[in-house]
Amino acid sequence: MVSEQIATLLVGCPDRKGIVAALAQVLYGHGANILDSDQHSDPVAAMFFQRIRFDLSSLNTDRVSLEQGIREVAERFKMDWRLAYGHQVKKVAIWVSKLEHCLYDLLVRYRAGELPCDVSMILSNHADAAKVASHFDVPFHHIPVTAETKAAAEAKAVELMTAGKIDLIVLARYMQILSPDLVAKYPGRIINIHHSFLPAFVGANPYRQAFERGVKLIGATSHYVTSELDQGPVIEQSTVPCTHRDSVEDLVRKGRDVEKRVLAAAVRWHLEDRVLVYANKTVVFS
Amino acid sequence: MVSEQIATLLVGCPDRKGIVAALAQVLYGHGANILDSDQHSDPVAAMFFQRIRFDLSSLNTDRVSLEQGIREVAERFKMDWRLAYGHQVKKVAIWVSKLEHCLYDLLVRYRAGELPCDVSMILSNHADAAKVASHFDVPFHHIPVTAETKAAAEAKAVELMTAGKIDLIVLARYMQILSPDLVAKYPGRIINIHHSFLPAFVGANPYRQAFERGVKLIGATSHYVTSELDQGPVIEQSTVPCTHRDSVEDLVRKGRDVEKRVLAAAVRWHLEDRVLVYANKTVVFS
Amino acid sequence: MVSEQIATLLVGCPDRKGIVAALAQVLYGHGANILDSDQHSDPVAAMFFQRIRFDLSSLNTDRVSLEQGIREVAERFKMDWRLAYGHQVKKVAIWVSKLEHCLYDLLVRYRAGELPCDVSMILSNHADAAKVASHFDVPFHHIPVTAETKAAAEAKAVELMTAGKIDLIVLARYMQILSPDLVAKYPGRIINIHHSFLPAFVGANPYRQAFERGVKLIGATSHYVTSELDQGPVIEQSTVPCTHRDSVEDLVRKGRDVEKRVLAAAVRWHLEDRVLVYANKTVVFS
Amino acid sequence: MVSEQIATLLVGCPDRKGIVAALAQVLYGHGANILDSDQHSDPVAAMFFQRIRFDLSSLNTDRVSLEQGIREVAERFKMDWRLAYGHQVKKVAIWVSKLEHCLYDLLVRYRAGELPCDVSMILSNHADAAKVASHFDVPFHHIPVTAETKAAAEAKAVELMTAGKIDLIVLARYMQILSPDLVAKYPGRIINIHHSFLPAFVGANPYRQAFERGVKLIGATSHYVTSELDQGPVIEQSTVPCTHRDSVEDLVRKGRDVEKRVLAAAVRWHLEDRVLVYANKTVVFS
Repeated sequence: MVSEQIATLLVGCPDRKGIVAALAQVLYGHGANILDSDQHSDPVAAMFFQRIRFDLSSLNTDRVSLEQGIREVAERFKMDWRLAYGHQVKKVAIWVSKLEHCLYDLLVRYRAGELPCDVSMILSNHADAAKVASHFDVPFHHIPVTAETKAAAEAKAVELMTAGKIDLIVLARYMQILSPDLVAKYPGRIINIHHSFLPAFVGANPYRQAFERGVKLIGATSHYVTSELDQGPVIEQSTVPCTHRDSVEDLVRKGRDVEKRVLAAAVRWHLEDRVLVYANKTVVFS
Repeated sequence: MVSEQIATLLVGCPDRKGIVAALAQVLYGHGANILDSDQHSDPVAAMFFQRIRFDLSSLNTDRVSLEQGIREVAERFKMDWRLAYGHQVKKVAIWVSKLEHCLYDLLVRYRAGELPCDVSMILSNHADAAKVASHFDVPFHHIPVTAETKAAAEAKAVELMTAGKIDLIVLARYMQILSPDLVAKYPGRIINIHHSFLPAFVGANPYRQAFERGVKLIGATSHYVTSELDQGPVIEQSTVPCTHRDSVEDLVRKGRDVEKRVLAAAVRWHLEDRVLVYANKTVVFS
Repeated sequence: MVSEQIATLLVGCPDRKGIVAALAQVLYGHGANILDSDQHSDPVAAMFFQRIRFDLSSLNTDRVSLEQGIREVAERFKMDWRLAYGHQVKKVAIWVSKLEHCLYDLLVRYRAGELPCDVSMILSNHADAAKVASHFDVPFHHIPVTAETKAAAEAKAVELMTAGKIDLIVLARYMQILSPDLVAKYPGRIINIHHSFLPAFVGANPYRQAFERGVKLIGATSHYVTSELDQGPVIEQSTVPCTHRDSVEDLVRKGRDVEKRVLAAAVRWHLEDRVLVYANKTVVFS
Repeated sequence: MVSEQIATLLVGCPDRKGIVAALAQVLYGHGANILDSDQHSDPVAAMFFQRIRFDLSSLNTDRVSLEQGIREVAERFKMDWRLAYGHQVKKVAIWVSKLEHCLYDLLVRYRAGELPCDVSMILSNHADAAKVASHFDVPFHHIPVTAETKAAAEAKAVELMTAGKIDLIVLARYMQILSPDLVAKYPGRIINIHHSFLPAFVGANPYRQAFERGVKLIGATSHYVTSELDQGPVIEQSTVPCTHRDSVEDLVRKGRDVEKRVLAAAVRWHLEDRVLVYANKTVVFS
């Protein structure tokens, strides 16, 4: 249920007494009806985190007044907070290179209503995905990248993201490494899928690395992109068994299934405002 | 963290506005510090459920006064509620027949500190488990059961449960069917492990049934016992793959692993006051 | 590796001594190089099963002579056998109704080279899938079905299958029940996906049934279609966990992921000649 | 079925034509009845591997003659091979430190008949496990280890292994690093459980490492011990999901379940002569 009248509040702050009561009180005072509330206290970091979904349709004040009330509580408790309204549908750009399984997977889920967003554009350094984009009626941008043109290509991509007011970039097997500058423009707003169970098999060719080490499971990791390659906060991971019978090609095939599920889960959770980042880790409210 | 100073409140009631705020307020008002809070609203049943763990050490009133406050809120919202204090360790009786894998599993977990309870006694219709009980320093009661002695045996068992102030009965592969009278004495307080993924393969010999149907996975189900055989509210289920190579004996062996995990999870969640029952289903707060 | 020069021999027969040696000898005698060999003896049924993949490129006789040799061994041991040549690519028809996730999944895998076959046509009782078929360059046939036209519609479908020399029909969420006559025409050659872990939740609306029973996992089952609804030999099954938070719609969403994987696995294994049926069960060689 | 009359042949050699036929022929020629046969060809390494279980009760020659026949085939194809007879039950020593969950798990499985072996002794650098050993009627040896006494302790342990004719050493959370000399004495005959999904989190405190990296699954790896720490051939691996709610202690608890399953599987497969090692990897016949 992601409707126009629903809002989601995410907060993180140093843990202390009274936070839950203060937030519940301010929402109740304005007539907002709490639909879901999930909380996490990290005793090691002494941090408090909460996600509250509430119904705005019964508000007895207005949004401006409600936000003012939340802001006051937030200041009192030194909260980082963000408030997402159901009517503000997030705009998503999917970046892809040649491998199309994650792209198809996301688009089929999108069409089935699994992903509450507006897939505004598909961007690729290859022309191949144009037909897929067209089939799903999503605008497509082809920005080739070479060593020489990389900076210019990124600049053009950023321009497109800005013009499209993109909220979230999904790297659906986009095989170019992003520059720190680009990453810095979208903190916690670029999701990548890495085809290994990180921190195992960082870098290139993880399935070949897995084959050579002779592991008995392969996996995938979705994470927010940071300036350090494959080191960003992990959102979701999963593995599947493999055996001595599996060639590198078999691992690639089995891996596609995991990659699709793990990336789609991370994207959905981000879109539903379930994910908070701190200390290079994620809190994912279920 | 299950310490003496921690309490857990579980509530269920018809859903309406203001419940979260009211509960948070009453706890805050008495100085209780909320450590964890998890909530679930079922839109189909129009029901509200919440689990709140809080710290009593900072209470600025006392327990009597706090309970009075909670009782007033509960009456206002027509809540079913229960409050569990960390210092009131639950007393558990494990009932077992001949198969000892679940018994060992529970006792090893218990000794490792996984199960916050007092395993007060082991009861069996066979003498075999006496040595296991002795090894783990748990009192053992042997109550043989035959068709003729069944009623008397149950009466004796109930006497032991009553004398031992048993809070929870765990049927760890206890192969006698309990009478409705006995079940009625412990509503939501008898946990059984059934060796299939219910509702498939109800009744006797589920592994043989599974073998004959040629399924490709087998499973186990932990549930609260009700008067209808294998129909009680499911607490946890899991499956493992099997193949054409697996004989009935192989399924039994594979099944033991699932049974152990699924039963232990259900028992732990019950002991941590994570489970609420309604409409013959469970809410299991994570 | 499914190349033109590879053949796969599948045999089943009453178990007795010397079968392995006889088959190995006849292949070796003709110069065929065994690439893979997997065997299963069922001591309960006293049956022997084997799958042998071998390379024809080193044959020192010819195919006619090799088949004659195999036929002689088969007669001696009363074998059911079939021999599949790599150059005889199987022709597949996908039947679908309105839900398109399994259809897309199969077609994306097909395009990625996961499914060694020729997807010759897509058939639907609705017009919706026409665009999908066109996007993947697969011929599409729309055969509406009503209670009145059902027999005629099936006749037309069979005509298409016959004309297209279809080897395998995949029911990718095709929601019409096939007549026994149609089923009898394709014994062991129609694969269906049922959206529950059979034998639980036979029939209509399995996700609603699962929701109402309050199970903690949902699943899917791929099976060969027989004249009894949802009773055919199981090829593959899998489950995923669910919780009290999952509405029927959530179960449907989670289920789509399992359905896709379980159906695709069954189809791939069938196409790779890994599946033997006996006693309403399957042997699936890995 | 591991009875006295059953033998298991494991072979590995450069791949070429005729191996399967030659082995089948020699077994058939001596009257041995093949019960199971599984084969693997690694096209990358150009290696052939096979496991054959056969029944000796129908032998028309004798074991000496059969072994001579196998030896001739083996020489022709340059095979590494070993032949294990059902009547030669393997002798196992379990080494353990303070954590007892894997020890209990193995012993309960052993008593239930899951592990076809003779658990000849338990060895520990702590005295704690003495009572467990006594409960299961297994001889116990306490060999304390300090930095100063390490060499002498190992010498004493080796003496015990030799005297006990130990075939397999199982490190069931034995927390001392073995010297290369000791390892060299038991190539492919020491199985360790490492509490992470290797190659992630090599070395000490893998659960703490996992917690700090913020991964969403934890795992365990059973492997043969080689002179390089945590680098030996992997036999089995598995993972379980974890979340932001899991403290290091929770990961340790969840991890125990995986460790137990993964170690027990590896030990069983080794005892059933299912495992071949080459190129620092394992072939595990199912």
